[in-house]
Amino acid sequence: MDVAVLSASMTQFGTREGWVRDLATEAALDCLDDTGVGASAVDHLYLSNMASGEFEGQTGVMNALAYDIGAVPAYTQRVGQTSASGGAGLYAAWQSIASGASEMTLLVGAEKMTHRTTGEASDIIASLTHPSEYAHGVTLPSFAGLAARLYLDRFDAPRESLAHVAVKNHDNARNNPDAQFQKSIDVETALESPMVADPLRLYDYCPLTDGSAALLFCPASVAREYADEFVVLSGVAGATDTHVVHERDDPTWMDAVAASGEQAFEMAGLGPDDIDVAELHDMVTLLEPLQLEAFGFAERGEGWRYAMDGTTTRDGSLPVNTSGGLKARGHPLGATGVAQAVEIYRQLLGEAGQRQVEAEAGLTCNVGGFGNCVTSAVLEVAR
Amino acid sequence: MDVAVLSASMTQFGTREGWVRDLATEAALDCLDDTGVGASAVDHLYLSNMASGEFEGQTGVMNALAYDIGAVPAYTQRVGQTSASGGAGLYAAWQSIASGASEMTLLVGAEKMTHRTTGEASDIIASLTHPSEYAHGVTLPSFAGLAARLYLDRFDAPRESLAHVAVKNHDNARNNPDAQFQKSIDVETALESPMVADPLRLYDYCPLTDGSAALLFCPASVAREYADEFVVLSGVAGATDTHVVHERDDPTWMDAVAASGEQAFEMAGLGPDDIDVAELHDMVTLLEPLQLEAFGFAERGEGWRYAMDGTTTRDGSLPVNTSGGLKARGHPLGATGVAQAVEIYRQLLGEAGQRQVEAEAGLTCNVGGFGNCVTSAVLEVAR
Repeated sequence: MDVAVLSASMTQFGTREGWVRDLATEAALDCLDDTGVGASAVDHLYLSNMASGEFEGQTGVMNALAYDIGAVPAYTQRVGQTSASGGAGLYAAWQSIASGASEMTLLVGAEKMTHRTTGEASDIIASLTHPSEYAHGVTLPSFAGLAARLYLDRFDAPRESLAHVAVKNHDNARNNPDAQFQKSIDVETALESPMVADPLRLYDYCPLTDGSAALLFCPASVAREYADEFVVLSGVAGATDTHVVHERDDPTWMDAVAASGEQAFEMAGLGPDDIDVAELHDMVTLLEPLQLEAFGFAERGEGWRYAMDGTTTRDGSLPVNTSGGLKARGHPLGATGVAQAVEIYRQLLGEAGQRQVEAEAGLTCNVGGFGNCVTSAVLEVAR
Repeated sequence: MDVAVLSASMTQFGTREGWVRDLATEAALDCLDDTGVGASAVDHLYLSNMASGEFEGQTGVMNALAYDIGAVPAYTQRVGQTSASGGAGLYAAWQSIASGASEMTLLVGAEKMTHRTTGEASDIIASLTHPSEYAHGVTLPSFAGLAARLYLDRFDAPRESLAHVAVKNHDNARNNPDAQFQKSIDVETALESPMVADPLRLYDYCPLTDGSAALLFCPASVAREYADEFVVLSGVAGATDTHVVHERDDPTWMDAVAASGEQAFEMAGLGPDDIDVAELHDMVTLLEPLQLEAFGFAERGEGWRYAMDGTTTRDGSLPVNTSGGLKARGHPLGATGVAQAVEIYRQLLGEAGQRQVEAEAGLTCNVGGFGNCVTSAVLEVAR
């Protein structure tokens, strides 16, 4: 069965007031708005969220959301896969439609983070690592520093290649009214920003963000009743790597990206050459070239060239993170994987405004932890 | 597609050492043991868990589990639906097989609670209620007291009718070596136990519990390659009610139980009369008669008679909670819905030892909060 995405929405990302429930409600109602689908027609409601219990002491948010938008008695479930909860939500929504369980599934990704201090939030995020790492104080930013040093040394890549990822993604966010940081930066600013984990600096990392994004799924046959044009989720898959990062043969190669990508491509009947636009998980700049390589867009050790030489800029042959990416659109953990698909939806249907590119097929990649579990998805314009 | 349950296991429930990951690993490996299915054949791994982040600061348990049992690169996801996370896991596993995404899905439910004080655990559990309730200090035990008074008054039911639920379930647990409390109690003990929320007393409530349970799912066509006899998950569905309990017309009627039950029965092509054994969500004794009524096993206002008159005892016409139920087998939040299906699996295949009843079809009901979201499932012996 072809699984359609009938509608897509996201809230303004950034520092927001209220509870995560408020953000989720805003995105959900906006997603239903103008579709002709009432909330009472939603039979399955999935909430992608990493840590509302830890961030605000609320674990029944999906049930509150069902009530707040008027979807009771729809079935609800919280989909959890750490920082890849949104991508896992795409997969859960696909399964609910493809299995025949649902005729209309609303997926909402949401996280509210900025009301906590950076230290508190970092501690919550670090809970996704292995306890042996967590107990020793290892965090994702420090992993990234170690892996970046290895990558730059091994492939003789210049330090500024990573700065170019940040510059590109900020430049894209400047044209995205929903993005957290709608401003450009230059390479010098990135290279001179405060050190975080040598060799990586402040501008290599994504911020803490509040935000929500939503997608409405149904069988393609049902979508045709509501809309002339829509998007199809033609491939979606997920895979794990070792949970302990030091167990990996090579921390500069993302096995779970490669495995989930192969499966998603096979399911869609497409390959890397067929992808016109991609939203990759740039929690840290380094991850963008690593994903380009694991998906086969770039040769091994060559991914760092793509932001520098313009391949992945908006006018390049493979625009990456036209939304601004996690770096500049922002990274509200559970919302990110959903927001990635929202951006691809908008690009495919010509709704991306000043950042519009030409695209018939797009890819999203949402990474849990340092590649501990990854979901990849292929979206195409419905024909 | 017929979705098979090929194997079922659970750990000893009670006060356990270690992390939730240890309990989940124990149940998972035990579930694979003797099936002929290696961990590497598991392509999807779902972890039903309510609050490992809150209980022990770990949110990547499903990824750790995949590595610990040797299932990498299997896709993993945490399934969250508060105290009904286990039932939601049954539904997620069904969808993964029925959609064709998976050929072999391992579902593990687990929670580790007893290392926290009763106060801390109660606070974590109360996070599943609506913030307006939570902020005012309302907890599930206090809701239950209010609803019990209403129910007993309205239907002229004797107080001891609820005590009989506890007595019956303790009597069943005495014959379940995996149960937390393997001892009988009498009605007087229940009625004289310390008051919790008038009119309910200590023995009306389930305990805090550590434990894990697991089920292995695959298409029935695949199950036949591995086993001569197995179980089929022939019906499964979920539904929400209002998240704010006081918004309901009648807190003694469980809308979400009725709605999910109707859907699960319709999917299985069965009705209440076809069910030979049931595991209901007796977080508090009152909930057992309420579920009997909502499913249509008992007339409205008559459910309280069933434990008293022997209808739901082991030698009655509809044995309920032969495992001991949440009351005496224990209630490790995310594990409970899975453990309910483990008990039905064992009853259907004649593996229930001293508590064995005759059954060809069984029902489980897992309740999130005070009926905020409920999943119901019908399991049958494969033919």
